[in-house]
Amino acid sequence: MIIKVELAKCCRMLNPGPTILVSSRKDENSNVMAAAWNTTIDFSPPKVAVVIAEGTYTRELVDQTGEFVVNIPTRQLAQATLDVGHISGRDVNKFERYKLETFPGEKVAAPLVKGCMGWLECRVIPEPHIQKTYDLFIAEVVAAWADDRCFEDGRWKLPPRELQSLHYIAGGNYLVGSEMVSFELPE
Amino acid sequence: MIIKVELAKCCRMLNPGPTILVSSRKDENSNVMAAAWNTTIDFSPPKVAVVIAEGTYTRELVDQTGEFVVNIPTRQLAQATLDVGHISGRDVNKFERYKLETFPGEKVAAPLVKGCMGWLECRVIPEPHIQKTYDLFIAEVVAAWADDRCFEDGRWKLPPRELQSLHYIAGGNYLVGSEMVSFELPE
Repeated sequence: MIIKVELAKCCRMLNPGPTILVSSRKDENSNVMAAAWNTTIDFSPPKVAVVIAEGTYTRELVDQTGEFVVNIPTRQLAQATLDVGHISGRDVNKFERYKLETFPGEKVAAPLVKGCMGWLECRVIPEPHIQKTYDLFIAEVVAAWADDRCFEDGRWKLPPRELQSLHYIAGGNYLVGSEMVSFELPE
Repeated sequence: MIIKVELAKCCRMLNPGPTILVSSRKDENSNVMAAAWNTTIDFSPPKVAVVIAEGTYTRELVDQTGEFVVNIPTRQLAQATLDVGHISGRDVNKFERYKLETFPGEKVAAPLVKGCMGWLECRVIPEPHIQKTYDLFIAEVVAAWADDRCFEDGRWKLPPRELQSLHYIAGGNYLVGSEMVSFELPE
């Protein structure tokens, strides 16, 4: 079941350092990218920082809307998380291509990806200098959600195996629990 | 054995999202703090971003020197990592109190903590606005080192159990491999 996470506790959701999916939407156009480079930076109000590279379609949509969703994918989405990181949303609808289902958020238009363990709806805090210089986006979390098999009483607990978080290593490899999970990089 | 990591590959060292120890030194004064809130932000030149709260002794030393070391602690340092996060270096020498041994780096004066899996020597890139507003420090990695039982051919591999990385959850709990490792919070 998906539960609402109180904002005072949502800063804990990125503490373990998972690889995330960043989803975005402008009108009928939506996209999703993978990002290992993310962190919480504050608890009140909760804020995150995410690297969104210049030239990507996600960057274009986030620049236009000032919004995105941080989705925390699980083992069952490991291949899709790898796949969406190696193709541009300008060329293909990644949700259709990789059969990623979504559901709507509460505060932002960007879609939430099903099968994740948690979701942070985010509004960008404009910081033009660091966005331009470092591709770094600071955002306030305005709503947060979690799968209650993974998150309880305001913190993560040990999830079922298929809902373990992904921790990117390099070259198609993730650390997932105590395992190295390897995929072929897409061509 | 500790090996030098080429700077082109060191950006991968924080990919899995470990909790880190930030060590600092000014003349005869040194300190160490724990930080779950960290991320790589660039690969060339390699850069990291770390939250260093205002008012902390680490912040004072980093402000004075423009340098710090990111140490990536392991299971064998889990209790110490928790402990150093709950006491101020103004009140006690944490290295002595928690029996943390160190060795010198190559490019910065801050000490490297023994028993870690990797080390990033960092020089702050001055960004006064985001330092003041978000306690966020951007730094360039100027030298990097790793334990060769954990890092090989430019990437992390599955380490021996005692050298697994720590991923902070909340309230004295870490995700370490597939286990939740719990400690009593220090008084």
